[in-house]
Amino acid sequence: MKRKNLIKTNCPIARALSVVGEWWSLLILRDAFGGTQRFEEFQESLGIPRNTLTERLSKLVEHGILDKHPLKEDGKRLGYALTPKGKELLPVVAALRQWGNQHVPTSNPSAVTMIDRRDGSRVELRLELVSTKGRTVPLDKIQIVSRRGRKSESSSEARS
Amino acid sequence: MKRKNLIKTNCPIARALSVVGEWWSLLILRDAFGGTQRFEEFQESLGIPRNTLTERLSKLVEHGILDKHPLKEDGKRLGYALTPKGKELLPVVAALRQWGNQHVPTSNPSAVTMIDRRDGSRVELRLELVSTKGRTVPLDKIQIVSRRGRKSESSSEARS
Repeated sequence: MKRKNLIKTNCPIARALSVVGEWWSLLILRDAFGGTQRFEEFQESLGIPRNTLTERLSKLVEHGILDKHPLKEDGKRLGYALTPKGKELLPVVAALRQWGNQHVPTSNPSAVTMIDRRDGSRVELRLELVSTKGRTVPLDKIQIVSRRGRKSESSSEARS
Repeated sequence: MKRKNLIKTNCPIARALSVVGEWWSLLILRDAFGGTQRFEEFQESLGIPRNTLTERLSKLVEHGILDKHPLKEDGKRLGYALTPKGKELLPVVAALRQWGNQHVPTSNPSAVTMIDRRDGSRVELRLELVSTKGRTVPLDKIQIVSRRGRKSESSSEARS
């Protein structure tokens, strides 16, 4: 399967990755969640070539995850901000953060926290997997199941 | 910042992505969560070149996310299975699935569900962001904050 076809598959994980799964996209979103708005700030934070950043930002705007808006201090220049659709990616970023903290140790202290804008208190992600029978399901009892969708029964896209 | 340096940053999100953020890695893990073990099954599902798949699987093994084990039906051949560290990536995959379902619609019906292995009932992800003051924080009140770590105060890695 080609990357460009992923957005059409019946797998929502593949569709999500087709939009935000390119290298740098989720780190751009991390910075946007931190309040970064200006192109130059993204570039300084990420240290990536301007054309790569331009391309990633354009794709995120095209898919309605970021939008362009006039910067307060300078009405002529545009900045980027998360849309409501973009903000709903926070669980993805938060889950990556949690796993990275636990499983990819570093000698540098963790420098990324989530706070409640209203009072500055730290925020942690609590995640619960709940079955339709109402019970909490531990990670090792979860299975991801792929069913074949109607439109893709005869194609190699069926499992994706 | 170069990709190879991401694993050393003080940002746990960047470190997590340095391990699982390459194209296809999270889709390989999706299939592993579904029980796929054999190289050929991964390849059929993903439709990617053998050398790309080999490289991604090797990296996931190297980082302790998958391990190789003899396949039951044929003791000589090896398959891949999620380690406990790998299983803890389920929240990332589940959060991508949830967002893809909600925000990247397709004419194909969703083909990926999570079930409780014990009784086959469907499982949904419930996510709660809770502050140290004990209250649930809505998405639009969350800010991700980067602090400068000691070791990287003078480098461009500080914000990542």
